[in-house]
Amino acid sequence: MGTYAVTGSASGIGAATAARLERAGHSVIGVDLHDAHVLADLGTPDGRARAVEEVLSLSGGRLDGAAAIAGVGPGMKDAAAVMSINYFGPVALLAGLRGALAASGAGRAVVMSSNSASTVPLVDAELAALALAGDEDGARERARTEQAAAPQEILDFAPSIAAYATSKLAVAHWVRRTAVTPEWARQGVLLNAIAPGAVLTPLLRDSTGGAAEGDPDDFPTPMPLGFFGEPEDVAFWVHQFLKPEARFATGSVLYVDGGTDAAMRPDAHPTALTF
Amino acid sequence: MGTYAVTGSASGIGAATAARLERAGHSVIGVDLHDAHVLADLGTPDGRARAVEEVLSLSGGRLDGAAAIAGVGPGMKDAAAVMSINYFGPVALLAGLRGALAASGAGRAVVMSSNSASTVPLVDAELAALALAGDEDGARERARTEQAAAPQEILDFAPSIAAYATSKLAVAHWVRRTAVTPEWARQGVLLNAIAPGAVLTPLLRDSTGGAAEGDPDDFPTPMPLGFFGEPEDVAFWVHQFLKPEARFATGSVLYVDGGTDAAMRPDAHPTALTF
Repeated sequence: MGTYAVTGSASGIGAATAARLERAGHSVIGVDLHDAHVLADLGTPDGRARAVEEVLSLSGGRLDGAAAIAGVGPGMKDAAAVMSINYFGPVALLAGLRGALAASGAGRAVVMSSNSASTVPLVDAELAALALAGDEDGARERARTEQAAAPQEILDFAPSIAAYATSKLAVAHWVRRTAVTPEWARQGVLLNAIAPGAVLTPLLRDSTGGAAEGDPDDFPTPMPLGFFGEPEDVAFWVHQFLKPEARFATGSVLYVDGGTDAAMRPDAHPTALTF
Repeated sequence: MGTYAVTGSASGIGAATAARLERAGHSVIGVDLHDAHVLADLGTPDGRARAVEEVLSLSGGRLDGAAAIAGVGPGMKDAAAVMSINYFGPVALLAGLRGALAASGAGRAVVMSSNSASTVPLVDAELAALALAGDEDGARERARTEQAAAPQEILDFAPSIAAYATSKLAVAHWVRRTAVTPEWARQGVLLNAIAPGAVLTPLLRDSTGGAAEGDPDDFPTPMPLGFFGEPEDVAFWVHQFLKPEARFATGSVLYVDGGTDAAMRPDAHPTALTF
């Protein structure tokens, strides 16, 4: 059986993913702030470096897959921390584990995006560009500046909603730009993103002011299926992307959002190529 | 175990899907022009009606899933036939089977799109609109008119390339528009699309003039992984979408294309919502 690293393993989708992999007989190296094999804060460069080092040590430098699931929600007060945890965390972790994934011969990596990337009308293109350029200091400063200038009703709704949606758009584009590079694609390491919607995790409950406790039809975005997702519903898809049989999908972003994005923007994907 | 209908079951991705479902212990009702339980031409209204009728009869009116995989390639001479087979075929078939899928309590439907929808610069927006409006006669006429006006070098490359890419864009948008309607979403029937890239099927071999026999790095579109897909690589993903556990993805389009779309258009998905 295989060895898999899972960040955010102490709760929500990360915990469901770790449990699912363990049920399938695999070894899981969990990474989280608490209740994990590797205790690390992926919001800081030091924490990321230690997480990579310890995962490499525990895995013997060979990983079958890595699921970068740790993240914080739009209710987080500090928009700079959202960028650091949601974008720079998974990017640094996966870059640091790439060699161990290549060593297995069929490495698989999955990152959590979010349907917020395409359904929240507050994405900051300049902030996304700073993230994709690898400028963490610049991205943190921009996130705080824009947060300070945001209308009070947006701050009251969710203080980091713009940084959150932007971090999730940027991480999806990072996946697509990175997966196709020779360092990943020609080393047999596939890299994909999953974009969940309203899934009943601590993140959702903490950031939607009770809406996730109510009727799905009263949720701020459309919920075509009429129910919220469970962490296991997303873990199912993470698991598929981590399998060796998942051999030909890379640079893809799979929405697992109960149809919210399709309901809001049916014709926004795919889009025709024009010159 | 479940009962699944698979169109295009005699070859390529359809055959690989049928074989995979049967290996998992399920009953498969194959639909194709030959070598199938149900022999029908999905390019005509009569053929579609007979296919639906026979599948409903063989399944007893209860289906766990349906995979609409039958399709023709851009090398087909008649662009009108491409629209009828690739768009109106799966749409009519799945609409006709929707009730049987609802009867199972957790029906799953998958349709084949293609990465051509977003990587071939010849999509005809007016043709897509005619298809999505359900106007088969209008779409057939438009496809033939545009084909007659196409530059000779495009016709020499693949005579129906524009209709092909358009049919695959339209079917993806049909999935997204339809999956979220109460008739599907509130009946527990999930509907998703898979967009394969260069997969070694008879369709690819017949429509790329030997390119699929050569070096993937000489293929007309980028092939980041350095290999062509096999039908089984796509069937793997079809199978996942057909599982009852695939409970929260609907209206999604999963690219299984070896990274071609990500390489050509990294930032084209997801896109930010703007007003």
